[in-house]
Amino acid sequence: MDVTDAARSAAPPSAEDALTTLAHLLREDMDETNRVIVARMDSPVALIPRLASHLVAAGGKRLRPLLTLAAARLCGHAGRRHIGLAACVEFIHTATLLHDDVVDESELRRGQASANALFGNKASVLVGDFLFARAFSLMVEDGSLDVLRILSDASATISEGEVLQLTIQNDLSADEATYLQVIEGKTAALFAAAAEVGAVVAGRGAAEQAALRAYGHNLGVAFQLVDDALDYAADQAALGKTVGDDFREGKITLPVLLAHAAGDEAERAFWHRTIEAREQRDGDLDHAIALLARHGAIAGTIARAREYASRALDGLAPFPDGPIRRALADVVEFCVSRAR
Amino acid sequence: MDVTDAARSAAPPSAEDALTTLAHLLREDMDETNRVIVARMDSPVALIPRLASHLVAAGGKRLRPLLTLAAARLCGHAGRRHIGLAACVEFIHTATLLHDDVVDESELRRGQASANALFGNKASVLVGDFLFARAFSLMVEDGSLDVLRILSDASATISEGEVLQLTIQNDLSADEATYLQVIEGKTAALFAAAAEVGAVVAGRGAAEQAALRAYGHNLGVAFQLVDDALDYAADQAALGKTVGDDFREGKITLPVLLAHAAGDEAERAFWHRTIEAREQRDGDLDHAIALLARHGAIAGTIARAREYASRALDGLAPFPDGPIRRALADVVEFCVSRAR
Repeated sequence: MDVTDAARSAAPPSAEDALTTLAHLLREDMDETNRVIVARMDSPVALIPRLASHLVAAGGKRLRPLLTLAAARLCGHAGRRHIGLAACVEFIHTATLLHDDVVDESELRRGQASANALFGNKASVLVGDFLFARAFSLMVEDGSLDVLRILSDASATISEGEVLQLTIQNDLSADEATYLQVIEGKTAALFAAAAEVGAVVAGRGAAEQAALRAYGHNLGVAFQLVDDALDYAADQAALGKTVGDDFREGKITLPVLLAHAAGDEAERAFWHRTIEAREQRDGDLDHAIALLARHGAIAGTIARAREYASRALDGLAPFPDGPIRRALADVVEFCVSRAR
Repeated sequence: MDVTDAARSAAPPSAEDALTTLAHLLREDMDETNRVIVARMDSPVALIPRLASHLVAAGGKRLRPLLTLAAARLCGHAGRRHIGLAACVEFIHTATLLHDDVVDESELRRGQASANALFGNKASVLVGDFLFARAFSLMVEDGSLDVLRILSDASATISEGEVLQLTIQNDLSADEATYLQVIEGKTAALFAAAAEVGAVVAGRGAAEQAALRAYGHNLGVAFQLVDDALDYAADQAALGKTVGDDFREGKITLPVLLAHAAGDEAERAFWHRTIEAREQRDGDLDHAIALLARHGAIAGTIARAREYASRALDGLAPFPDGPIRRALADVVEFCVSRAR
């Protein structure tokens, strides 16, 4: 039985279990990564560590640095270089979160007041820039041009995805391919790079590197599809962010595209008013959720996520069975099972 | 007669002359750099080149990439690597401008509507991120870890300077040392790195590298001191930005610190109301300018700039006389003579 079958036939792990198992397997590496993160976000300018540690202390899943650590270990890496690179990945992620929250005008992040709500947009933009620059300084200390190439290219792709998302905001004529291009950029690019970098530090060949990149990429797409479904479905406490944010911003996500495409004239008028014209009234979010249910738009989005999850599992095929490979397979399941 | 004496005894060049001479000497290099800039700011996401080219097409002095090109040629570099690195320097500068204008809520940049005023804050933040990431991709293509270290460290220092500036905004208790730390970060760090990188690509030793770094650093401090003086003194058309911006934002700059320190009780009350409490009325800017004149605060700021200009010229001492060294000396004079 290959890893794909094993993962599919196993009882789906609870959301907590899958990430907890991975974090447990990599506990020492992750503890060390956290120490590097805290040490290297420091600055004589006190506001920088204060703002950055607000976000870092709020927790978060540390999913992306865990991917780097796990990929390196899966490839048999026995050194310490993956620690610093996992910290780089988390810095890049934190920088994008800070800028995203400014762009989205979010008030909640990880269940707490967002940094921009607490410290202002200006500080969030500039501390994001600092963390991004510091990530590159850390990579230079590591000294691998391959790693620098992978993570600088990923950073440019992330921005392209974010700008494209801004371009199609409130535009229901956007198609599914464009939406996929957005989430491949804003989310999957860093998942892919985080996993690939693990193979690079381990000195593995192009095949393993490409396989782990594919694992990360497809996991990232699945993760974002589920995130976009949860924005219309989850309860606020579990999600750690405000439900309906995407709706209020008129963000174009797959659930809305599917419901809009399947809707009758009155429904399309509703979507045009709320998403394109952004004229929203009390009860509109509930009505939107009802329309998504009527057309199976949440289920359709999750089904799409499952396709990507399956491809992510294929990326693990070249690697021998073992606790890390099993945990990485479970993480895929975790990402889609969050939606239940 | 050494270069310092030569530069000091020469008739001060007009502002245009100094930069025009340098740009003329390096015309082919700069043309090629501009082609790299245009080619590498491209993206399938159309808003990115549209927004970026708005800023790039608006001109600007291209002072920072010229420093890289000039430093490389001064060191006898005969290859082409300095072209791509000059483009990196301009990308980093453009990224910081885009983010600065968001942070400062500026409406004018280089005499035109700023990108954030035209395209919105969100697009400016994200396109800034793209250009920053693209700069690092370009550096990776160049392949020098020294260059990557110098420019990633400079980028972190720029952000630290900007955050520190935000921290002391509206705070008249800030001292001159803190103000200097701000401008050393937000301006001088990139001038220093731009010049140093030129020595690195030329393969010159640590002494020349340090000398050009000192040249850039001190030029940058002088440049920013004069910029801060001009914000209270220049006419709007020549400056290409709104006069009094710093005053309206309550920005702590040396002219204000000097006038506040020398002021009587009534004057200090004026500065506290306008800068700390930001209660500003019609006529306040004119009154502020009158107070600066009364205490010689503009002249004092320019005198400080001249000290740094002199140190910048010292950085050229290790290099043999020639047209590029003379042009670099004239650029120093240009930077301080703008204030007249």
